This record gives sequence, C-alpha cells and structure tokens, in this order.
Amino acid sequence: MKAEIITIGDEILIGQIVDTNSAWMAEQLNLNGIEVFQITSVHDDHGHIMKALFDAESRTDLVLITGGLGPTKDDITKKCLCDYFQCGMHRDQKTLESVVERLSKRNITINRLNQDQALVPDACTVLQNSNGTAPGMWFEKNETIFVSMPGVPYEMMGIMEEEVLPRLRKSGKLRSIYHQTVLVYGIGESMLAEQLETWENALPQFIKLAYLPNQLMVRLRLSAYGESMDLLKQAVDEQIKELESIIPDHIFGYNDDTISAITGKLLQRTGSTISVAESCTGGNIAHRYTEVPGSSAYFKGGVVAYSNEVKMALLGVKAETLKAHGAVSREVALEMVQGVRKALDTDYAIATTGIAGPDGGTAEKPVGTVWIAIAGKNETQVECFRFLNNRERNIERSTQTALNMLRQLLLAELK
Amino acid sequence: MKAEIITIGDEILIGQIVDTNSAWMAEQLNLNGIEVFQITSVHDDHGHIMKALFDAESRTDLVLITGGLGPTKDDITKKCLCDYFQCGMHRDQKTLESVVERLSKRNITINRLNQDQALVPDACTVLQNSNGTAPGMWFEKNETIFVSMPGVPYEMMGIMEEEVLPRLRKSGKLRSIYHQTVLVYGIGESMLAEQLETWENALPQFIKLAYLPNQLMVRLRLSAYGESMDLLKQAVDEQIKELESIIPDHIFGYNDDTISAITGKLLQRTGSTISVAESCTGGNIAHRYTEVPGSSAYFKGGVVAYSNEVKMALLGVKAETLKAHGAVSREVALEMVQGVRKALDTDYAIATTGIAGPDGGTAEKPVGTVWIAIAGKNETQVECFRFLNNRERNIERSTQTALNMLRQLLLAELK
Repeated sequence: MKAEIITIGDEILIGQIVDTNSAWMAEQLNLNGIEVFQITSVHDDHGHIMKALFDAESRTDLVLITGGLGPTKDDITKKCLCDYFQCGMHRDQKTLESVVERLSKRNITINRLNQDQALVPDACTVLQNSNGTAPGMWFEKNETIFVSMPGVPYEMMGIMEEEVLPRLRKSGKLRSIYHQTVLVYGIGESMLAEQLETWENALPQFIKLAYLPNQLMVRLRLSAYGESMDLLKQAVDEQIKELESIIPDHIFGYNDDTISAITGKLLQRTGSTISVAESCTGGNIAHRYTEVPGSSAYFKGGVVAYSNEVKMALLGVKAETLKAHGAVSREVALEMVQGVRKALDTDYAIATTGIAGPDGGTAEKPVGTVWIAIAGKNETQVECFRFLNNRERNIERSTQTALNMLRQLLLAELK
Repeated sequence: MKAEIITIGDEILIGQIVDTNSAWMAEQLNLNGIEVFQITSVHDDHGHIMKALFDAESRTDLVLITGGLGPTKDDITKKCLCDYFQCGMHRDQKTLESVVERLSKRNITINRLNQDQALVPDACTVLQNSNGTAPGMWFEKNETIFVSMPGVPYEMMGIMEEEVLPRLRKSGKLRSIYHQTVLVYGIGESMLAEQLETWENALPQFIKLAYLPNQLMVRLRLSAYGESMDLLKQAVDEQIKELESIIPDHIFGYNDDTISAITGKLLQRTGSTISVAESCTGGNIAHRYTEVPGSSAYFKGGVVAYSNEVKMALLGVKAETLKAHGAVSREVALEMVQGVRKALDTDYAIATTGIAGPDGGTAEKPVGTVWIAIAGKNETQVECFRFLNNRERNIERSTQTALNMLRQLLLAELK
C-alpha cells in the first residue's frame, strides 16, 4: 500500500509553523507497513487543493489530508471534498451532539459556526474526533482511500489512532510488521554504529535497523516485515537479546519508556521517594516527573531555586558557600541536594546548578557549565558537565543527564 | 514571484526527521516577498525527482531543492539535475580547493568520494558553501530559477543567506509581502470569528486573514501582498488598530510573544518579582519562565508541592485546611499562593492545585478540576476551572490560564 500526505494551510507555506503532523503521520504509516510516497503542502486554495487530490489519487492508494477544517471561514477543505467527490453536504447528528456536549461542558453557547462543524460531505463516513469539534472524514474512490482530518496535532493523532489505523488494519491490506525500539544512552551515534557493525551486518534481510538520535540518546528501531507475526516477534526478540549482550550498560529502556518513568518504577519498587532542587533546569525535571501519570506515588515535589536567596531560604545553602565558590559549583550543588532531601524528607534527591545561556558565562565557567548532584541512600554523587551554548538544549541535556545519573545509582543499589 | 520547495530524502518520508528546512526557507522567502506555492517531499528516486522538477517548473518561477547532496549519496540529485538540464559534469576547481582545505584542517585525507563532491553540472553557477563540502548550484531555464542545496540545515542556511537571497534581491523580481500575527487569548475560535465578522468582511482584498488556534489561544495572522512595503505596513497596522478596539481584552501579544515572556516584561517594568507554587502543573510554569533568556531578573523560583507534606512544610498550608477542604480547593490554593510569596519574598505569586488525571477524580471534583490563585500587590484572585480529561493538555491549559490571569492582574494594576 502506497500513501501520500497532503497538508493544507498557508501557515506551513509561510514558515510560521513546522509541519510536525506529516512526520508523525509518516512514522505511523511506516510502522504499519505503508510506504509514504510523497508529502505535499498546499495553500488554502480551491484549485490548488483539487489538483493535489487529483495528483495524489493517480499515484497512491491512500491519501491523508490534514488542515483546513475548523469553525472559521478560512476553512475550504470541506467544499473541495464535496466538489471532488461530487456530492452535497448534510448535518451529521452524532457530530452535532458531540459539538454541543463538548462546548456546553465548557459553558460555551453554540453559535452558527459551531453548528456548521457538523456539516459533512454526503460521500464520507464520519470519523469521531474525541479531542475536538471538527470530525474526520473517510472517502473511497476508484480503489483509493481519502481521509481528511483537522490540523490540530492532538485531534489528528486521536483520529489516526482511534479510527484510521484500526480501519486500515481491518481492511486486510497491510503486511505484518513488528517494531521494537531499544533506547540507548551515553554513546554517540557513530561510535554506537562501530560497536554494532558485526551484529548489524548479520541481521536477517527482513529486519531493518534505524538509528534515531535525540539529544544524548539514540533510539535503535528494529522493524521486521513478513507474513507470520509470531515468527517476526521471535526473530526480533532474539536480536534484541544479542544487542543487550553487546551494549549492556547503555540500554536504558524500550519503546515509549522515558528516563523519568523508568527511575519512577525503580523508586516505586523499593517504596522510595524523590525530590528535586533545580536551578538551571528551572522546573523541567519536576515537569518530566509530574507528566507521568501516577508519579505522586514517588515524586514528592521540588524547589526551583533560581535566585541565590531561594537557595539559602528554602534549601539551606550557606551564604559563605555561595560567596566562596559561586552558585555554579560543586559545593553549592551538594548543599542544594542535601537541602532539598532534608526539606522535603525524601530518600533520594537531584540538584542542578549551571549556566544555561545565552548570557552569564565567564572564561572559567562558560555557558553550558552544569553541576549535577544526586543524593542516594548511601552515597552522594556530584559531577560537572560542559554542554554547548543553546539555552533550550542545555536545559534538556541537563535534565536527561541528571535523570540518567539517578537511574544508574538506583540500579547499582539494587544489585 | 512564486516559489516551490522540494525536499529530497527518505528520512522525511519515513517520519525519521521533521522537515524544519522547509519551514525556515518558506519564512525567509516570505520575508523577502516571495510567495511559496507548494512544498513537496520526494524519495531519493530518479523518476520521482524528475517529475517533481517538471511539475514545479510548470507552476513557479523559483524552485529551491534541498537534500541528496553529500559525500555518500550525492549522486542521485546531481545526476537528475544533469539529465533535467541536459548537460554533463565537470570538476569545479574552487570547490575542490575548498573541500581539500576544509578536510585537511580536520586532518582527514581526501578520498575519491570527497573529490567527487567538486563535480558539478555544466549548466550551473556554483554557489559557495562556507559551512560544508557540498556546493550549492544555481540554474536558469525558461524564466524559472532552480537552486539545489545540501540538506544539512546550517549549510543550507549559509548558502541561502550568503548567495541565494542576495542574488534574488538583485534580480529585482520580488513583490512585497508583510505579515503580522495578533495573539488572542480566552475566546474560542468560532466566537472570535463571530465578533470579527464585520471587520473581516471589510478587509481590503490584498490582506488575507488566517485563524491559527493553539490550546486556549488563537493566533490571527494578517498577510498583505502588494508593491510598496510602506503602504502594506500602513494598511496592516491600521487593521490591527481596529482589531484592538474590537477585542481589547483578548489581545495579549504579537508575533513570537509568549505569555510568560510578556508577564516577565510587565514585571520588569516595575522592578517586581514573582514566585510559583505548583501542584498540578508540576513545575511547568517555572519551566515556562526559566526557558526565557534573562528571566532571572524577575523570576526568583518556585516550589513544586506535589505531596501534602510539601504543601505544609514549605508553603505553610495548614493541616486543618487540607483536612477540611482537600488539596484541590479554593482554601488550599489561597494558602499556597500566600505561602510561596512569603517564603520566596516576592511581589507576586501564582499557585495551582488540581486533578490532572487520568486518575484521582471524584463526582464532586472530576479530572480537570483546577484551582488557580494569583497574589498581586493589593489583591489576591482565586478561580476554579474545569478542563477535560487529558493529563498533558490539562497541565498545559492550567499553565496558560494561570499566566494569563497574572497578565490581566498586572495590566489592571498598571492602569
């Protein structure tokens, strides 16, 4: 099965937003054994959209369309779809009820524009949108399937996961495909590739390997294509076992695992708790914990100690230590981590203090200098890192590094 | 002048990378008055690339091509270009010298693959790449300009800035385009459209309006096309003034502004400081502040008070209050906001306490119930919100709502 993705919207063509929808959809289609032949971004323009639909139909079996669906008048996708499939529109009762329900929950009275969201082309099967008011639409014409979805990412993702992919799977047109992703930390892509060369070269033909680097991690994705799902699973699981024996210390998880959730599970296993004292990461480590459902079982909280006063008042960092060594120092990181563990009465604690940039660097402590301290049950570790000069990436790298230090400490203690 | 962007490379079509190059190029072209008509991503495949070049030539005056140029897989794009422009290849001396110089600096001996990077189609003008070894190439055919660049973002950006844009400016073919985005908060897309209907219908033909919703905000983008930049600016600025008089309370910023940065500027204007006490937002508000460069001037820090013990120990929330009203209550939100302002000694403070989900909801307090309190210089506000049942979005919506409440309080005080 071959697919084309069409994104509709001037915001992509003027560079106001980066088209992340296409990448996500392309990944999902590939994971389900569907090759994406082309991605096309077009204007909110009738003639242009019609031409794109026509071209896509001529070369693919599946056309996914996003964007151009919403309550306002810059929305012309539905009109184009009616013209393309030569049909009229009607009000879909189920969609209207869902719009009413959704808006009344938020105490919004329905206006005409909202009501018009329930108008759908007669030729389509309506796909429910559980995250918004604009429904998805499924059309079939001359052996090609067309699916139109709103451009808001989480609405599109919901419709893809709840409606589109299950229907495609049911259609029986998909090849069997089995993916597993191994999450690797603390080794660069090219060095990893060198270490895995022999193993990689010996992989069977039907298993494909992809290196997906992301900041300090590399995700290794194994994809097996074939007829029997049982055989695919068995073959991939065997390869992963071998991989685990080659780089045992670098693998930290699988598939959708995150380092915060993994350390959370390790803490939960021993009934332990954690707190964080964040200067340069500014709340990002706490955010990583609290975005995990159920994290209140082990994460008690934290202090974002951005100013020196807060470091002293809430964490007990001494004025003399700050004066003698500066806020970005081993000594302050150690006092922060002990301070937060004591103040929040937890078994473990993490502290970060550094210069995220773009300003604040000196010759001795350039932008990117970060001290991270981890307090465990028996020992406290502290380490200095030199990241680069991009603020956003420094915050993210410091976060990943701190969580990974905790993970290693927890694993060492469990041994 | 109308342009098309063609990106070549399987990594985009399998969803392995997000196509940020296109967004950057589109923005640059628009800023220079060139409308981007379409963005097309195609496979590393000869027939597919030839078809894309042919289609692009038929509808645009400028075709920017990225990807498929590099030491390992540069063959395909260059071969296609030679076929498309019916010419051979020759070694470009200046490019060869630059390759040798660049690699010898890094102590790399030149191999045949490196030498072949200096091979260029006879029909092109070579564009120097000051950040890498693969040169850019400029072709002209039947009034259409084609430019091919490597896909590595900073190499492409260098060639665009140093070679492509200056040449286009010199050509004198550029029309003027002027964009402004107005950021609107606290009103849904459809209700906004209703309020703006008369104004929108009266917009001059040469100004286009787009609604770009994102969580609780809507970005309104005005784009004006014409000959004189001065006239476009004047016309758009006049429309924005009118817009400001229709929805004065809902406009919170312009273009790339964020609510956290805007409240930061307001705080800085009066030399004020802020702290945050976060339960359900779990550090996300602190993160939003600390990702802004220079935020240490007004943001002193915060307490992520996820457990009740932390609410009591660090924020002085009373055990009786927690017992009588529960952690998710008006009373606890108020004690949190007063507690953090006192503990961190700031002029303003924000507190959040709620049920982010997916678990923890009750009939009385369902998932999505969030109390937000804002302490100002003279008054303290507290409000209850009912968001929906997606954890990630509840965190984000609570964050946006809290920052907007602060913004409104700051504005009211400045009046």
